Amino acid sequence: MIDLRSDTVTKPTEEMRKAMYSAEVGDDVYKEDPTVRELEETAAEILGKEAALFVTSGTQGNQIAVLTHCRPGQELLLEEESHIFYYESGAVAALAGVQTRTIPGARGAMEPKEVLNAIRTEDIHYPETGLICLENTHNRAGGAVVPVENMEAIYSIALANKVPVHLDGARLFNAAAAAGVDVKEFAKYTDTVQICLSKGLGAPVGSIIAGNAEFITTARKWRKRLGGGMRQAGVIAAPGLIALTKMKDRLGEDQWNARVLAEAIETIPGMKLARQPETNIVVADVKGLNITSDVFVERLRSEGVISGTFGPTFVRFVTHYDVTEDQIQEAIEAIAKVARQ
Amino acid sequence: MIDLRSDTVTKPTEEMRKAMYSAEVGDDVYKEDPTVRELEETAAEILGKEAALFVTSGTQGNQIAVLTHCRPGQELLLEEESHIFYYESGAVAALAGVQTRTIPGARGAMEPKEVLNAIRTEDIHYPETGLICLENTHNRAGGAVVPVENMEAIYSIALANKVPVHLDGARLFNAAAAAGVDVKEFAKYTDTVQICLSKGLGAPVGSIIAGNAEFITTARKWRKRLGGGMRQAGVIAAPGLIALTKMKDRLGEDQWNARVLAEAIETIPGMKLARQPETNIVVADVKGLNITSDVFVERLRSEGVISGTFGPTFVRFVTHYDVTEDQIQEAIEAIAKVARQ
Amino acid sequence: MIDLRSDTVTKPTEEMRKAMYSAEVGDDVYKEDPTVRELEETAAEILGKEAALFVTSGTQGNQIAVLTHCRPGQELLLEEESHIFYYESGAVAALAGVQTRTIPGARGAMEPKEVLNAIRTEDIHYPETGLICLENTHNRAGGAVVPVENMEAIYSIALANKVPVHLDGARLFNAAAAAGVDVKEFAKYTDTVQICLSKGLGAPVGSIIAGNAEFITTARKWRKRLGGGMRQAGVIAAPGLIALTKMKDRLGEDQWNARVLAEAIETIPGMKLARQPETNIVVADVKGLNITSDVFVERLRSEGVISGTFGPTFVRFVTHYDVTEDQIQEAIEAIAKVARQ
Amino acid sequence: MIDLRSDTVTKPTEEMRKAMYSAEVGDDVYKEDPTVRELEETAAEILGKEAALFVTSGTQGNQIAVLTHCRPGQELLLEEESHIFYYESGAVAALAGVQTRTIPGARGAMEPKEVLNAIRTEDIHYPETGLICLENTHNRAGGAVVPVENMEAIYSIALANKVPVHLDGARLFNAAAAAGVDVKEFAKYTDTVQICLSKGLGAPVGSIIAGNAEFITTARKWRKRLGGGMRQAGVIAAPGLIALTKMKDRLGEDQWNARVLAEAIETIPGMKLARQPETNIVVADVKGLNITSDVFVERLRSEGVISGTFGPTFVRFVTHYDVTEDQIQEAIEAIAKVARQ
Repeated sequence: MIDLRSDTVTKPTEEMRKAMYSAEVGDDVYKEDPTVRELEETAAEILGKEAALFVTSGTQGNQIAVLTHCRPGQELLLEEESHIFYYESGAVAALAGVQTRTIPGARGAMEPKEVLNAIRTEDIHYPETGLICLENTHNRAGGAVVPVENMEAIYSIALANKVPVHLDGARLFNAAAAAGVDVKEFAKYTDTVQICLSKGLGAPVGSIIAGNAEFITTARKWRKRLGGGMRQAGVIAAPGLIALTKMKDRLGEDQWNARVLAEAIETIPGMKLARQPETNIVVADVKGLNITSDVFVERLRSEGVISGTFGPTFVRFVTHYDVTEDQIQEAIEAIAKVARQ
Repeated sequence: MIDLRSDTVTKPTEEMRKAMYSAEVGDDVYKEDPTVRELEETAAEILGKEAALFVTSGTQGNQIAVLTHCRPGQELLLEEESHIFYYESGAVAALAGVQTRTIPGARGAMEPKEVLNAIRTEDIHYPETGLICLENTHNRAGGAVVPVENMEAIYSIALANKVPVHLDGARLFNAAAAAGVDVKEFAKYTDTVQICLSKGLGAPVGSIIAGNAEFITTARKWRKRLGGGMRQAGVIAAPGLIALTKMKDRLGEDQWNARVLAEAIETIPGMKLARQPETNIVVADVKGLNITSDVFVERLRSEGVISGTFGPTFVRFVTHYDVTEDQIQEAIEAIAKVARQ
Repeated sequence: MIDLRSDTVTKPTEEMRKAMYSAEVGDDVYKEDPTVRELEETAAEILGKEAALFVTSGTQGNQIAVLTHCRPGQELLLEEESHIFYYESGAVAALAGVQTRTIPGARGAMEPKEVLNAIRTEDIHYPETGLICLENTHNRAGGAVVPVENMEAIYSIALANKVPVHLDGARLFNAAAAAGVDVKEFAKYTDTVQICLSKGLGAPVGSIIAGNAEFITTARKWRKRLGGGMRQAGVIAAPGLIALTKMKDRLGEDQWNARVLAEAIETIPGMKLARQPETNIVVADVKGLNITSDVFVERLRSEGVISGTFGPTFVRFVTHYDVTEDQIQEAIEAIAKVARQ
Repeated sequence: MIDLRSDTVTKPTEEMRKAMYSAEVGDDVYKEDPTVRELEETAAEILGKEAALFVTSGTQGNQIAVLTHCRPGQELLLEEESHIFYYESGAVAALAGVQTRTIPGARGAMEPKEVLNAIRTEDIHYPETGLICLENTHNRAGGAVVPVENMEAIYSIALANKVPVHLDGARLFNAAAAAGVDVKEFAKYTDTVQICLSKGLGAPVGSIIAGNAEFITTARKWRKRLGGGMRQAGVIAAPGLIALTKMKDRLGEDQWNARVLAEAIETIPGMKLARQPETNIVVADVKGLNITSDVFVERLRSEGVISGTFGPTFVRFVTHYDVTEDQIQEAIEAIAKVARQ
């Protein structure tokens, strides 16, 4: 099977498996796991932040950020299809008691002026605006890259209004690869940032949150409350280190594959792109085939290709380390075959 | 001063004051206050519900409804400028751990199809949709009446998807007066409803929530947790009873006054209506005067008329029991004078 | 019926009813109700605090104090049978996300050394100690007065450990009357204090929380979230003012009546006092009558006296403004009669 | 260094490292990781429950159990020094909004009658009792085994009162080894149970919660909210499987070592046992040496043995897989040397 559902499905590489086998470990709750510490220090440096913390998932990283930045009764501004709002099971309200206020974005980017207007003034009827969350690349916007300029503009508004900014950068390295800049260029317009090691970077498990030292100290306690404090976590930090230092430089391949796939889809009668891919996510619209995305995904699976629904007629394909150029060609043939049925 | 900020400013009538003076009371925490019980039974009957509960404010009524209907981690669908989302200090997240998902409305009414689309399917990444909240009349939409047909359509979607419906009916009697129907016609397309005694109805303090008996039993416990369980509450239930039984029939006067005011504003150079008033709320746009609403409100106050800002250039006027026809004429003159400055 | 269940059952006096009738009012959400402001200023002065806030119940006052002092994940130290832990429906966890850590007291007073030991050190496994709550007089300890010296010792420990202290002083005026000191003598060993107007003081509804100005500002917002922001609240603040300024000086009568009742109970065969009364609460043990408190309370009710269960064999009697010396004699006869059955 | 701080410090065995290297994996959020599934099925069978879920820590397992069993405003009964209350950073209140009601135990076991008395009756002032939590072996009671008969008695009370029972069985296999019975004998007197793979069983990371299928379905969603949904989690489930199937049978060795250590300590002048060890935890009192536990632990560390403080004069030693019989002898010598200083 060629699995294009998500870049989360990548399996650890041989090098990662060897790293797990030989990882030097300690008890990380006592901060004694050398591999975890190395991963955290390396991540902080790459992101240009003072400190970092290893967490078990992107959702956990985002939730800890909200819990650390905010108090119950505050309001969180974020894009209306952002992962934190859309895909985290309502956790920001359930765990942090924080109200979500959503702003529709264009290709995942909120208009800075709309962010400014949504910041609450002081009034007994209003929650205080406690945090702004950005997402880059933006998943529901089809892997769109939020431009550095947009982030800079929003960050400057946030600073002026004393509201912190958190970046859900689960796929930030994809944004950097597409924009041809260092991840620091994005991260500098944030107070805190979360990156996933287990998506395009291919590690089996884990994410990182980074920020200043005080933030990370409080975040560590919230991680403990959520049960994310692990013992010999070095065994999963070891492949994470490889992901972070070696895999980030090959994301261009996934983006090339995505482009090849997208161009082929454009030529298939009855199919069209929901939008031009910018990174490793391709969203196709199958409305012209007069079938729902559920049916399309099921038929394509019987042709050996796994994809995902992304709306009633939208199908999502995500390229990643475990999909070769040849497999992209096979996938294109399978898609074309299903489209002809 | 002529106070047009809100219908919440009405002062108790002589009859209400006499009712407070002579109210028969008991300890309502033990359910022994006869006046409270009479108020609750009367309200339940008027709203066509099995049972009702006296609470200290509209916000408390709405919050108790959410706490009783929902569990943390669920999602609440509501109009994007509804009172529960906009003006309750983020309480639904802070107290009930429920995520708000907002839908833009037209004159306060959400499109039923958009409500349907926003109901979450079963997926581990999604919060479950736990409640739909409506608001009628809709405050931020300028007192607009949400049509019975719209409520019926949404309620039928809700029933089909096993999601309960709560109505923030703080000004439901205004809706009924404007639509010329009984409040039961609106209330029947809801599971629970909140009405305010202290807005257009003129009572000094209090609101009612109504629903089935099981709902009210659980709601009573949440009221206790919020500190809304009062002792000899009959002293404020007594004017509430007068509000509920006698004042509701005079809301047409306020609506007439609002219409007179609105028509006058339309003729003032530089001013226009944000929208045609449907009930007792008039929203004017002062952009044409080249001043902000803050400045306008301040100048109007020095002319003896109190109004409220409702956005950068919007000013809100609310008619109510304590404003006579003559005072509306005086207010119009003051507004015209400020507009000429 | 002679109602000795609780001092919450007192009905407003004629003077209070007149005060409601003629109260000057405004919209308190806009801080424009002159009677509420007078009540708050008077209460702050009596308690020796910078500012005060009118709330609808003792439970609401206590909950707002916890919400204002603490953050989720903190721990609250309090006596193991204190009202906040025992009788507030688990609200501190439900609303404020704060863990209760209880310490057994002697006549309601916690040993200062045990309080010190229970304050958490810094450790990732521990919640931070966020607040210490005291209760005076202590309800479940039978209206016992917590000595000023005990409060002073605990407050000094709290200061040294930078933990704030809140006093549930629902019946603080009873403590002051019994100890023959001003309430300020108790209040000065606290950061914030809650007093009830509707228990021994006889107002129909309401409590006060007092503290510094910053605390009250934040508390006001939490009151709004809980739905405790009322409109023309002056109508209930007016009797509250009478309670606060005139009724506090007559609590000695209730305590005298309690003493008379207690001494009589001690002479009734089969009955004994659970403890010597210190204020207006008498707890009797009916074990010697070989019946449960449920049965005793029921039989006594058919003799025209209402009391309350306070454990399997404990019965509680509370004296208050609506019970005269003659009625205490009648109650004694009824109790003796039931004891003979 | 000989590390006797905790059995959490055990490092993965060679066999576990090989299992990580070669683990078959998939995306566990899609329930497609075969190793995780095998671990969960094996754990469910061993514990005699319908289903199980892999989580990242014991704290996460306990928190998910509370979140799944309870609603905000309920009360949780548990032993006053239990891990959930003492060592989980106040998470049950912060995350689940549940109030803790603690009962002092004897060697970690609560008196069934006291549990019964602590279950709340129906009253508007009371939280509902939502859950009873047990802990076996009991950490703060020095690894004491809570007898099967005690658990049976409490479970029967719980059933009669319709309150579920959760077992924090982080060291349940130690209890089973000491009692000479199968873990099922303990687990059958619970609704749900949590076991740690990373303590005595030696896996690097992870715990299991088990219960009926409906419980596990809801628990899976709460795990997602807490960020415990991992991707190729098979890499850590693989050593967990070895821990669960092979390591549990060697816990007798650790208990033997603990006994040897304890007997030696009893003979050292100035030292005594806080209590007789029942499993792999030895708690010594150093009061007779006229030093605090902090000082003792520090001096012992310079002799090459790491222990932990467990109170002002209590020191805790935990035996585990990474400590040999010879090392126990070395540790005894070091302890004796420090005691002579």
